[in-house]
This record gives sequence, C-alpha cells and structure tokens, in this order.
Amino acid sequence: MSIEIHPAVASCLRGFEVPDRLGFGTVMAPVMFRARCQDGCWSTGELVPYGPLALDPAAKVLHYAQSCFEGMKAYRTRDGGVSLFRPERNAARMAHSAERLCMPPVPESLFMEGVRTVTAYCANLVPASSGESLYLRPFLLGTQPDLSVSASASYEFYVIASPSEAYHAGNMRLWVEREDSRAAVGGTGDSKVGGNYAASLLSIARLKKRGYDQSLWLNPGNRRTVDELSGMNFFAVIDGELHTPALSGSILEGVTRDSLITLARELGYTVRELDIDIEELLARVRDGSCSEAFACGTAAIVSPISVLGDDNGEYLLSSVPGPVAVCLREALLDIQEGRAEDRFGWMRPVEVVDINDQ
Amino acid sequence: MSIEIHPAVASCLRGFEVPDRLGFGTVMAPVMFRARCQDGCWSTGELVPYGPLALDPAAKVLHYAQSCFEGMKAYRTRDGGVSLFRPERNAARMAHSAERLCMPPVPESLFMEGVRTVTAYCANLVPASSGESLYLRPFLLGTQPDLSVSASASYEFYVIASPSEAYHAGNMRLWVEREDSRAAVGGTGDSKVGGNYAASLLSIARLKKRGYDQSLWLNPGNRRTVDELSGMNFFAVIDGELHTPALSGSILEGVTRDSLITLARELGYTVRELDIDIEELLARVRDGSCSEAFACGTAAIVSPISVLGDDNGEYLLSSVPGPVAVCLREALLDIQEGRAEDRFGWMRPVEVVDINDQ
Repeated sequence: MSIEIHPAVASCLRGFEVPDRLGFGTVMAPVMFRARCQDGCWSTGELVPYGPLALDPAAKVLHYAQSCFEGMKAYRTRDGGVSLFRPERNAARMAHSAERLCMPPVPESLFMEGVRTVTAYCANLVPASSGESLYLRPFLLGTQPDLSVSASASYEFYVIASPSEAYHAGNMRLWVEREDSRAAVGGTGDSKVGGNYAASLLSIARLKKRGYDQSLWLNPGNRRTVDELSGMNFFAVIDGELHTPALSGSILEGVTRDSLITLARELGYTVRELDIDIEELLARVRDGSCSEAFACGTAAIVSPISVLGDDNGEYLLSSVPGPVAVCLREALLDIQEGRAEDRFGWMRPVEVVDINDQ
Repeated sequence: MSIEIHPAVASCLRGFEVPDRLGFGTVMAPVMFRARCQDGCWSTGELVPYGPLALDPAAKVLHYAQSCFEGMKAYRTRDGGVSLFRPERNAARMAHSAERLCMPPVPESLFMEGVRTVTAYCANLVPASSGESLYLRPFLLGTQPDLSVSASASYEFYVIASPSEAYHAGNMRLWVEREDSRAAVGGTGDSKVGGNYAASLLSIARLKKRGYDQSLWLNPGNRRTVDELSGMNFFAVIDGELHTPALSGSILEGVTRDSLITLARELGYTVRELDIDIEELLARVRDGSCSEAFACGTAAIVSPISVLGDDNGEYLLSSVPGPVAVCLREALLDIQEGRAEDRFGWMRPVEVVDINDQ
C-alpha cells in the first residue's frame, strides 16, 4: 500500500493548537484522508490539509443523499500509545451501508489505511482525559454531476477527525416518539446513512422544546417495540437482566452495543436481545422492575437515561447513573484506554508518525 | 428586491453553446442563483457563474442529508416567450420539505426571484421542441460544519438549470417493489428530500437487471396499496375512470398530478383519489378492466406504463400509449407550451433579459 502525503501536512499539524474546550465534533483536525473512485476503480489514498470540498452543484449527494458514514474513535492508552477500537467492524458496516445505497464499498484495506493514517499523524491531538478521544468520521459521497435519479459513477471517500469529549454526559431525558419515524421497514434503518438522521431532526427539535434530549424511536412497522435513539442503541435493566432490542432491520447494529453485550455476559449478567414493548417498558419503569436504562454508542459511550416521557406523563428512572451502566462503562473504557487487558482482541494500536521527523 | 448579478454572468452565457443531444439533467446552464441563510437571516440573492460549491467536509448536508429540492420547468411558448408553470406550488412544497428537515423555509419571494432570474438570463437556452424545456432545480443545503446530530445554523439555497428532454419517453416497465421502502409512515415520503431517493436506488438497480425501468412503491405501513414511483405519481384508467392513489403521507404531492386531475375533470373524466390495492390492480390489468396506466411528474410529464411485473410474472398493458395518457399529456403541454389558453391561471411569463445589453 502506498499513501501520498501532501507536503503541507507536517506544517498544518505543527501549526495546530487543540483548544481547551473540545465539545463534540466541532474542533476539526487540520488534515484529512481522501481517496476517489471512478467507475469502480479506487485511487491511491492521500493525506491532505483539511479544507473545503469542491462539489459540483449537481453532485448526486447534494440532491439524492447518496452518502454514508461511520463514527469511531482513537483512544489514548495508559502506556502513552494510541489505539483504534474494533475498526474492522466499522469497515464492514460502512460496506453494508454503501451497498444499501448502491455505492461501491470502500475496500477494507483502504478504509483501514485511512483511519490508521489520520490517527498516526494526529496522535498528538488525541486527548488524554478519560472519556475523551479523537473522534474519526469516515464518509463516502456520490459526486457525479447528473440530476437523474440513479447511482453515481464517481465517489469520494474521506476520513476527518475531531478531538472530542463524549457526546452525552448522561441523565438523558427521552421522549417516546409515536408520530415520526427515522426509517422504514425495508428502508435504511440498519445502515448508517444521512437520510435516517435527516428524518430524525424534526422530532428532536420538537422534544427539545418540551425539555427532552433525545427521541426514543419505535419500530416503524408495529409502532410498539423499541428500536433505538438516533445514533445510539437502547438498554434496560429489567428484573436484574440486561435487555436490548433485537436487531429488527430498522436498528443500527452498534459496535458499542455488541461490545457491551459481550462485556455484560463476561461480568455474569443475563443479556437478552428481544422485542421490547414500549407499554410494558413504561409500566416496568413505573413499578420499579426496570431499575435502570441507558443508551450507548461510539460517540456517547454509555449514557444513563433518567426520564422517559410521552403524552401520558413522565416515567422516572434514577437521576444518578445506575450500577449496571457505571460498571459496563468502566469495563469498556478500561479496555479502550488500556487499563485492562485486551482479552477480546479489540484494540488495534497505531504506530505514531512523528511529524517533526518529516 | 435587489439581486446581485456577477460581472462574469453575461460572458458565461455568451460563451455557452447548447449541445445537440440534451438528455435529462446532464447539460448544465453556465449560471446559477445563490442565497445564504445564517441563523434565520437570508442574504441578498446573487446570479453567479455555475461552478463548484466549497463545502466544509463536516457540513451537515454531507453527513445527515439535511437537504431538499424542487423540480420545475421553464417552457418555450408559442409566441416565442418563456414561462414558468405554477412555480408557487413548488415554492410551497419546498417550504414544506424544509420544515420536515428543520431547515428554514426559503421565503416565497426569494424562491420566485431565484427561478425567475435564472430563467430570465437563460431564456436563450430554453429548447423549442415540444416536450423539451429548461429544467430548473432549486435546492437547499445545511452547511454548518459540526458533527453533532442537530439542525444546521447555516444554509445555502441554489437554483441551477439544465436544458433537457423529457425524463422518460414512455413504454415503462414497472416492478412492484414488495421488499424495500422509499420512506416510512411518519417519515419523509411527502417531502422532496434526498433520503427518499437514496433509499430507492438499490431497488431500481435490482429491477434494471431484470429488465424493468422503475419501482412501483407500496405504502410502507400496509404494504398493499400503491404509493408512487420514485419522483413520479401513478395513475390507472379503471372501467373508464381515472384513479390515482390518495395522498397517504408517504406520497409526494406532485404538481403535475394535481394539474392532470384538474384537466381530466375538465375533459369530463371521473377522477378518484383513493387507496389502490396492488392485488386488485394487477387482477384488473389481467382481466382488462384496467385499460391503461401511466406515471406523471414535472421531469417525466406523462409516461405510459406498458408492463407491471412481480415474482408471479408480468401483467401487460398496451405497448402503445393509451388514449387517456395521450389526451392528458397533450392538454397539459398545450397549456405549458402556449398553444391553449391558460384558463386555470397556471402560467407565469418571465421577462427575458437580453444579455447583449449587459
């Protein structure tokens, strides 16, 4: 594999200072990875200065949302190194998303080259506080300028990066969304594509006015079972067991979801992937047999839920993080941040590039 | 209203030659209209040379598909003038689409200024053959660079134009899509947003391999009633009556659909907007009581359907356009192209700008 490194990359990185306040996804690293695909043939990848994309006004992505993305993180580990967490899962999911939208999958080797190269050059930007990380955003766009409704002949793949705090701190107030849907049965809900997020914005704006943080999406077919949040999977602790919605076709298969299931089973919890009926869930919150609930995702890690709300009122969970959420968050971060043995083979250390040698 | 005209506009237009073969949406006019919105405040509109948009790699539109668009046409009329067709309907629909995705609606006056200005300056590019036109594509993008899942604070509105043939010639072979959905109940199907089109690409690619042209989408809730094609509405002539699916929430309310309903009633047809059960429709095609079917849209005008297909086989309609389709297409084009009186007040003549005076 050969990568082209733009001559301005080292000076861009040397001239960059990480601000004190990070937020999530707002501070962008000064370099990005790029590769192009024309009629199925991929170019060599390049690391270039971060800067505007020049897109034809008729590019398919701008009209027909032919785009998909991933969210993943590079973690500062205890030994001072930098590691990616299960990046092959993101590569595989991005290939699945691409195929759903008739896009050529980014080859796993090119995807890995992209996330490794950005991480290697941006190693100094990976924050060291627990829970912070370098958030990586690989994304793929259909760029052909042509207004007919058909798949693009040309694509661009990018990896951009953002030194970030965790996306949600916890104590989340969720609104049970009974009107809108983020994706259809037979739609794109199990793919990480823009349209799912666009469809969710109005619900989120509406519930924010009511003092809530996120929508709890129901299955668009039956309108009764819980699917997910936008960008996060859902877990509840019911009679001491850990329950999470079974993958229904309209749920994104989260890497954090899968990792928490594995960790919870190792820790001795009974974990069930099943249909969670919203009315039963609300009843169990009210009678106390649901002792905690939380959301999880790469960006959010583990975010405890303190309230579920709908037109009938509020269903209160604890306002302090529950013991299962705390324990799983710690077990996951302990592996990601190198305090615990990597006993599942999840971590991929990245060989750091010293830009002062360039 | 003031518009800024970029100094290079006149020379761009003078140097542009319309190629002999137009196709649909591939030949782009050399100028475009642009306006920006920051925190709800719209800039003055500008007419500028057509050229690449500079979008931050973290722009919301590229990740979360926060974009919507319209399709409309400027027609060369019999008297040599140029007219828009019911542009207020497109302005209103774009406002509806924008609101569904938490975007600020483009004010009607700005929308009209955009489509009128592009048409006025590109009048020489409006083809004169019947069925050809200057296709106009207004679109709105969320441009804020920020990876959190929330509405953008900044937007760009564009109008680009393409001298075009009609999108489909007719004799369409439709596949009854029973697996995939283009939009959800409670989703974005009644808005003209990218995600609906992205979700439809895989179905279209699959059925093209089987020798079909377009998917016939079913209602995503009941999976039994007909919704629409991607970008076109559906009509069938059953026992001599004109039937079209009632607006279900997952159907785009087409301007051509509405216009054909009006024209058909004027012509004495009984028109019903109702639920069309796919099994009943297929049975009626087979027994001959469905005598014709066609799709309609701004781009496609009226496109006769010759075959419906599904896993059970093919349901054959006439391979020559049926009398109702022919009659309605002619009645519509007669108004649009100025051969018939504008008795519904649909046409909006545009005062042409002579670029040689500039």
